[in-house]
Amino acid sequence: MTTEPVSRRIAGIAATLGPALQFFTTSAWAHHQGDPGVADFALGNPHEMPLPAFANALKHWSAPQNKDWFAYTNSEPTSQALVAQTLRERYSVAFEAQDIFMTNGAFAAIAAALAAIVDPGDQVIFISPPWFFYEALIVSAGAQAVRVSADSLTFDLDLDAIAAAITERTRAIIINSPNNPTGRIYPPETLKQLATVLSTASERNGRPIYLLSDEAYSRIIFDDRHFDSPTAFYPYALLLYTYGKTLLTPGQRMGFIALPPSMPDRERLRPALFLAQLVTGYAFPNALLQHALPDLEGLSIDIAHLQRKRDRLTAALRAMGYWVNLPEGTFYLLARSPIADDQVFTEILAEQNVFVLPGAIVELPGYFRISLTANDEMIERALPGFQIALQRASSEEAL
Amino acid sequence: MTTEPVSRRIAGIAATLGPALQFFTTSAWAHHQGDPGVADFALGNPHEMPLPAFANALKHWSAPQNKDWFAYTNSEPTSQALVAQTLRERYSVAFEAQDIFMTNGAFAAIAAALAAIVDPGDQVIFISPPWFFYEALIVSAGAQAVRVSADSLTFDLDLDAIAAAITERTRAIIINSPNNPTGRIYPPETLKQLATVLSTASERNGRPIYLLSDEAYSRIIFDDRHFDSPTAFYPYALLLYTYGKTLLTPGQRMGFIALPPSMPDRERLRPALFLAQLVTGYAFPNALLQHALPDLEGLSIDIAHLQRKRDRLTAALRAMGYWVNLPEGTFYLLARSPIADDQVFTEILAEQNVFVLPGAIVELPGYFRISLTANDEMIERALPGFQIALQRASSEEAL
Repeated sequence: MTTEPVSRRIAGIAATLGPALQFFTTSAWAHHQGDPGVADFALGNPHEMPLPAFANALKHWSAPQNKDWFAYTNSEPTSQALVAQTLRERYSVAFEAQDIFMTNGAFAAIAAALAAIVDPGDQVIFISPPWFFYEALIVSAGAQAVRVSADSLTFDLDLDAIAAAITERTRAIIINSPNNPTGRIYPPETLKQLATVLSTASERNGRPIYLLSDEAYSRIIFDDRHFDSPTAFYPYALLLYTYGKTLLTPGQRMGFIALPPSMPDRERLRPALFLAQLVTGYAFPNALLQHALPDLEGLSIDIAHLQRKRDRLTAALRAMGYWVNLPEGTFYLLARSPIADDQVFTEILAEQNVFVLPGAIVELPGYFRISLTANDEMIERALPGFQIALQRASSEEAL
Repeated sequence: MTTEPVSRRIAGIAATLGPALQFFTTSAWAHHQGDPGVADFALGNPHEMPLPAFANALKHWSAPQNKDWFAYTNSEPTSQALVAQTLRERYSVAFEAQDIFMTNGAFAAIAAALAAIVDPGDQVIFISPPWFFYEALIVSAGAQAVRVSADSLTFDLDLDAIAAAITERTRAIIINSPNNPTGRIYPPETLKQLATVLSTASERNGRPIYLLSDEAYSRIIFDDRHFDSPTAFYPYALLLYTYGKTLLTPGQRMGFIALPPSMPDRERLRPALFLAQLVTGYAFPNALLQHALPDLEGLSIDIAHLQRKRDRLTAALRAMGYWVNLPEGTFYLLARSPIADDQVFTEILAEQNVFVLPGAIVELPGYFRISLTANDEMIERALPGFQIALQRASSEEAL
């Protein structure tokens, strides 16, 4: 970003993404992520070959069965029916096919949901530490992004802070459980209290505050924990999901927005979401992915393996002296930087060919994030580097 | 749309789409388009099996060659290089790879381009008769849509009307050549004059008016005509393209935005377009499509066959007494409704199991649009229906 932005909108968006864009474009990671011998834990990208069943499904369903095979595709009735059935089975809630909106990923689902419900002047609350792009998406929708910090010890929602942040202009709140980057699954008690806060405020405001529930990691759960969808506790809730995490195929974009049957606004949200998907750029999954959906819906990467990688890294790093947070779900392990400046520490790690995400980029200064999508060999190869970096950081600190 | 819109934004978008949404959801076409025996000329959808080479390319490239095969994908360098090379060859203009932005279709390309350059309060000009969604996309970007009618006799741009519509708030103009629905290719002389109008106004305004050149049909050209890209005549121009027309696969979304080397704003547009693609919902083509691009770039439906269908329909309809416009490109044939109300006439045609698009939906009352993506058998089957509908309309008119 060396030159003047072309519009105020883009300037506003760029302002929310400064540290992330810098990391993605100019950091040591940006220059060396593809180098041989590097252990890259920075992003939730695959480090093993794709699931064979995923590739086979694409291959199989590439064969056209009729003239309409690759014709205009939006939320196909077969996709809607399958997703509704899956949600009914997973959550014992009577989701209806007409309330499923197939999107090209969760990114598009959030953009479309905001485009449907938010007007300029509205406020949208997001929780810090956040996913990189919430603030940018809120600003892009013309609304004001209101940051509310999670509890710094438990990473649970800070309900008092949320209540205090709500104004008469609050139109929505974005919640992410299981949470990236903290790995926290919000407990039912928290979600109940959140619902009370939102219901009270909605009544006071005379219009609903919508809960956008980003459930991208809802099928990446450890220790046989139970995941409660925040949408089960509050009526004005939209469930947002992507297959990109569960299948670890973020380059093939498919997800959905689902309106639970308890949503009082279903009638007016249906046309709104459809129009919002059109104007955000025809944000529907490609025809091929929807043809393949019956083969993909039940598919998943090996969660037990992911958990073993979590446990191996956690045990090894803790044994070295790192503070490591044990995630309840998601791809991510959060560790404390042994020195205050996590960006400096990640550069020290980078010298050991180990790349992690500096906490500063997800508004968690003093931490760093490790993606468990690393492969076993990478993990073993990286451990000495973690050890050396810790020693080096300690000695630099001591200077 | 039976209930109150959920936001002012959606209300504004819905207001631009009234007749189109009605046609797509409640017309005779909406209810009967899939019935056997129907001749459906309403949309540019396929009525023959997909190109075998298209399906084969998807199948072939579904086999992952490395761990990153389905990883996060944006504008891949291989795609950018290939598109830049193609544009250099087609237009003898030195397009650079770094100025190619791969999008999931032209819909997304327009949305992203507007998101990059337009601020609330800006005005964007579009030409009537327009593609259905220009106005909705402009409104969704927070700008004011300014309609300028094309010349009603020649369907060429009305340069005086464009000049008169420009204000100090004008930020962009969307041009579509070859034009849907008129089939017009704007001649070089028009494009030169347009450039003069825009350059003069940009200078007066102290900021550029961007030309968004929607070239979705640039490879669907009849009679060995030459297509001149409007971007060759005016520096502040963005070239927007989709493969969905040339391949007749609108359900597999891939297109691009290209900045010509003459664009003075390339430096600041590059980051702006990238950010705009992010916040419109990660609007990049899926990984598989980009892997397959080398096989798809040179592929095309049979344009000579499309032209034969154009000629067969034009000759037959003219022989019956219809006024038919001979298109220079695109999928569409424009005919005059024999009665003033084209919506009534399309219902009369529908009784004959012939479905066309009423002109009213593309701001061309008194006309109807026939898609040449129909197959030969459908065309022959439909001709008696066109004949009977013409007679019926004439006798109703006479009553």
